[in-house]
Amino acid sequence: MKFEEKLVSAQQRNHSWLCVGLDVAHARMPLPLQKTDEPMLSFAREIIDATKDLVCAFKPNLGFFLAEGVTGMAALERLVRYIPSDIPIILDGKFGDIGSTAEQYARGAFEAFGVDAVTLSPYVGADAIQPFLAYADKGAFVLARTSNPGAGEFQNLVLEHGAKSEEGGTLYEMVVRKAMEWHRQGPGMCGLVVGATYPQELEHIRALAPDLLFLVPGVGSQGGDLAATVQHGPTAGGIGPVINASRSIMYASSQKDFAEAARKAALQLRDQVNALRTA
Amino acid sequence: MKFEEKLVSAQQRNHSWLCVGLDVAHARMPLPLQKTDEPMLSFAREIIDATKDLVCAFKPNLGFFLAEGVTGMAALERLVRYIPSDIPIILDGKFGDIGSTAEQYARGAFEAFGVDAVTLSPYVGADAIQPFLAYADKGAFVLARTSNPGAGEFQNLVLEHGAKSEEGGTLYEMVVRKAMEWHRQGPGMCGLVVGATYPQELEHIRALAPDLLFLVPGVGSQGGDLAATVQHGPTAGGIGPVINASRSIMYASSQKDFAEAARKAALQLRDQVNALRTA
Repeated sequence: MKFEEKLVSAQQRNHSWLCVGLDVAHARMPLPLQKTDEPMLSFAREIIDATKDLVCAFKPNLGFFLAEGVTGMAALERLVRYIPSDIPIILDGKFGDIGSTAEQYARGAFEAFGVDAVTLSPYVGADAIQPFLAYADKGAFVLARTSNPGAGEFQNLVLEHGAKSEEGGTLYEMVVRKAMEWHRQGPGMCGLVVGATYPQELEHIRALAPDLLFLVPGVGSQGGDLAATVQHGPTAGGIGPVINASRSIMYASSQKDFAEAARKAALQLRDQVNALRTA
Repeated sequence: MKFEEKLVSAQQRNHSWLCVGLDVAHARMPLPLQKTDEPMLSFAREIIDATKDLVCAFKPNLGFFLAEGVTGMAALERLVRYIPSDIPIILDGKFGDIGSTAEQYARGAFEAFGVDAVTLSPYVGADAIQPFLAYADKGAFVLARTSNPGAGEFQNLVLEHGAKSEEGGTLYEMVVRKAMEWHRQGPGMCGLVVGATYPQELEHIRALAPDLLFLVPGVGSQGGDLAATVQHGPTAGGIGPVINASRSIMYASSQKDFAEAARKAALQLRDQVNALRTA
């Protein structure tokens, strides 16, 4: 099954554009869990169980697992296997290495860990992207306009018109145009990471690339614009954006009711999105 | 000890600017090793033993270990511990995530795995770099001009003169200017990744940033320009570039004499560099 089909099927089944980001930070877990044998896995499992009927995807972030060394990576592997097979998993690794190494990352993500999609960084160029798109049933979301405060430092640099910079515009617009080519070439799906914290850019990128799937971080703790995300997030073909929230759901409570609190926060965000869809 | 001091000490002790890249690809190992219990670790250990008196650094590439899942990551952890403590280890992960996640990557690389330096991708901006530079005794090499064929796709885009793009020039020149600021701010060391396959850009970047340490990939299998690397690689203060070769050393022979062949290839490249230094 193609990545888009798996995603749409989960979106429809759970009436949801919500993705829960699994940024499992040891220090932020409820204390009783920190003392168990496999704290990261136990915590993530409870969050998954509490939200799996409310999401269209889960997005574990590689950095949080790498931070705990091999123990963390083992938790990641088991967590990926624990997620029901009909919910797409996006491994947020922001990979971006040259060709022969990109092949290794793709093999690691799609074969060893068995996820459905990844996030990629474009600085190295197409060489870093194509090995991932060689997997016909997988997806890759390329960073276009990220959600962080300093995102514009490079992404909004204005390019000169002319041969080398083609149509001019900003760096992130150039990345968007390239991603459209990469998606056309396929066979895998190439989408974009577009932060909800920059709603004007989000609207603009949707206009530039009507058919590319969006992964939208920044709506939770980072305070992004949910209404703009719902309005401009869907593709021309009607596939909803993957709207990610991590901390605001995982750490909705630091007490032993954390799973219940996560469910409540996820339900509220999902329904808020759905209300905006029909508004 | 600061990263630069540890590097210079290894450069002097081993009369070497050579870094051996530990890109351990399971499929390329000699067959007898592939059948051992811990093939990646056994292979890497033999390469390390055969070259440790000839190098100024080792550079394991995260992608090759991630490709083998948790087993690969366990091999990476043990390999890092196996390397003599007076040889700097650069974890080539090309990390580039937003602030709170960048902190996790830094913790993973510098604390959990215990390496001395990393490679970073600049697309997300300073938010992705600073958490690494918060470690006073560690180093971060930011991708400026990479060694791959498509490197120029974004890196050579020409920026418009004016407020947003400051002094104009290309994207990679802008990254170089930012890296100079990041290095000044410290306290950790900020250097640059500059491919030997683009000798003119290498010379130009050295002129722009006389004080930044270079990590130079691309001299082995990729056919980069060794003479230009030796001529323009050193900082104004005389610290030599970290000249990386991976495949041309690790896979110098696919037979059981692979370690001996690796030593021979490393010795030859080190001495070739040293001959160019005194030429």
